[in-house]
Amino acid sequence: MNVLPTVVFNKGAVELIDQTRLPIEYRILRVKTIADLCEAIQSLRIRGAPALGVAGAYGLLLAFEEKWGKSDSYYFDEGSANLDTLPADATVENIRGALAEAAERLRGTRPTAVNLGWAIDRMKRVLSGSWSDPADLLRALHREARAVHEEDLAMSFAIGRAGAALLKDGDSVLTHCNTGGLATSGYGTALGVVFSAVESGKRIHVYADETRPLLQGSRLNTWECIGRGIPVTVLCDGAAASLLNEGKIACAIVGADRIAANGDTANKIGTLHLAIAAAMYRVPFYVAAPSSTIDLSLRSGAAIPIEQRSADEVRKFRGLTVAPDEAQAYNPSFDVTPYDLITAFITEKGVLQPPFTE
Amino acid sequence: MNVLPTVVFNKGAVELIDQTRLPIEYRILRVKTIADLCEAIQSLRIRGAPALGVAGAYGLLLAFEEKWGKSDSYYFDEGSANLDTLPADATVENIRGALAEAAERLRGTRPTAVNLGWAIDRMKRVLSGSWSDPADLLRALHREARAVHEEDLAMSFAIGRAGAALLKDGDSVLTHCNTGGLATSGYGTALGVVFSAVESGKRIHVYADETRPLLQGSRLNTWECIGRGIPVTVLCDGAAASLLNEGKIACAIVGADRIAANGDTANKIGTLHLAIAAAMYRVPFYVAAPSSTIDLSLRSGAAIPIEQRSADEVRKFRGLTVAPDEAQAYNPSFDVTPYDLITAFITEKGVLQPPFTE
Repeated sequence: MNVLPTVVFNKGAVELIDQTRLPIEYRILRVKTIADLCEAIQSLRIRGAPALGVAGAYGLLLAFEEKWGKSDSYYFDEGSANLDTLPADATVENIRGALAEAAERLRGTRPTAVNLGWAIDRMKRVLSGSWSDPADLLRALHREARAVHEEDLAMSFAIGRAGAALLKDGDSVLTHCNTGGLATSGYGTALGVVFSAVESGKRIHVYADETRPLLQGSRLNTWECIGRGIPVTVLCDGAAASLLNEGKIACAIVGADRIAANGDTANKIGTLHLAIAAAMYRVPFYVAAPSSTIDLSLRSGAAIPIEQRSADEVRKFRGLTVAPDEAQAYNPSFDVTPYDLITAFITEKGVLQPPFTE
Repeated sequence: MNVLPTVVFNKGAVELIDQTRLPIEYRILRVKTIADLCEAIQSLRIRGAPALGVAGAYGLLLAFEEKWGKSDSYYFDEGSANLDTLPADATVENIRGALAEAAERLRGTRPTAVNLGWAIDRMKRVLSGSWSDPADLLRALHREARAVHEEDLAMSFAIGRAGAALLKDGDSVLTHCNTGGLATSGYGTALGVVFSAVESGKRIHVYADETRPLLQGSRLNTWECIGRGIPVTVLCDGAAASLLNEGKIACAIVGADRIAANGDTANKIGTLHLAIAAAMYRVPFYVAAPSSTIDLSLRSGAAIPIEQRSADEVRKFRGLTVAPDEAQAYNPSFDVTPYDLITAFITEKGVLQPPFTE
């Protein structure tokens, strides 16, 4: 299985692909401070609910490096931790304080994506264990962050396998936003289903909603599909109904940022619009997501907080004026698709139907 | 009633607002050749079915000027024609030949908009009358082109009045593509309804779908509304379902490029998607168009020819790469909304229900 390293912890820094530069430029950012990591998340240099979870977990390692690291050495690397000589003030108590503060700053960057808070909570559970030796605590945090990363990759593969069984050789699949390797730790959720089907020998054609305002579909899905030799056709979001009406699309598969217990699903703005059109033309509409995206504390989608983003994302395009400044803009980052418009949920535990309990 | 002169015949040339430059720059193009007029239509410097009808009619006057005009004088002006001294070879026969050729070049520029062919056919009927004096023929053509223009303006006002009765003080209206003065000879169809309601003292808030790929909503509707002091909010096309679900929108009003006898309506790509979402949330969905948009020769929308446009409209944005060149693009200019998703048709003859006969 072909993996694209979207986010790694390498030589004391979080390294990530700057997704705002794609497809024009492939650039790796080395992020060395919590402030820069928060900026990278808020500016969508890294995005996608599963990828944000991994970045959030690594963020707590970064918080330690930022406070206690030295310019010529580092404590954490991708596969190893060098914790033999810790500074005197790096006590369990002080580490808890510094990392908890970083955790809350990171958590506040994107209010809708549940995986970010979920990964941070996993790290905080380690942090609140009963530790006497700070090196033991730090080793446990490093293991936990790597576990979040590795489990996400394993989950991507499992989602891919579960979903691939739904696709036939020759199918065309419609996607919304980016849900490939870039949105996860390297393989994908909705696009992972396509990749898995292709790796098993099926020919699949991807139709990618461009996904305004930030064009993750046209910029990122196309780039990932072309890189894997998968034919891809981009379309404006408003053209999806016309395409669905032509009967060319076997199914639509989208990702999710948060799923309520009843199955209502928050995902990138435009998902609801697409789900309604798919229902109109009786095209199966799947949500592919790790089960960590399901928030059992929310009974329905009405309780999912929706991030509102800047008007200039709609009014400008890479600095070019599209609409006059005097125009207002309606720019929620997500919408909520009701469960009854969703054919099934493709998760690492198989293809599921709501309501979800556990 | 406040009119924006979108297209006029002035001092021997077709003058039009270059709509591709808005809202950054307000520039008037003086078009002096049929080749340039065809380019202006194909590049959407002038667009909107009613405006194209007026441009097409004036195009036949331009064809005469191009062939027989002199650099220091002109035969046709906005309100007058100076046809006292015609060249010897400007015979009725030769005029018929030259103008018929120009008519077919103009007709081929945009295959979906019915008004363009309709206006050209009106001019050709004059052309094929029994004329002995070429000056009489040319005067009749000038009268006919001005009649197309004046009738379009009168029709806009009548559509506005008919539709304004459907709006209440305080309503929010959702629009798709540009259907204001820029799309017509100066007032509008769907936006004309809003302008008429506002001129009668009602407060209306316009929500404008940005309308990818060419962003006529964010570029042109906002510009027209702001110019008239009407509050306007722009949104990405995919966000419309979320907005409709919030219950903020009293109705959606769109224009039309061609309407079949059963009421199926071809309009800018994304209209069908919007109509489906409006039906889902039980928001009235109106089509506002002059009755000349109804093509009684077509029983249903299945027979409406749909223009396919360049992939680079989707893959690039003002020269900036959005999607890699290796990606294909699905880019029909129009989609067809079935009549049963349309609440009513607002025409200069009142608010109508299909099927249409005459």
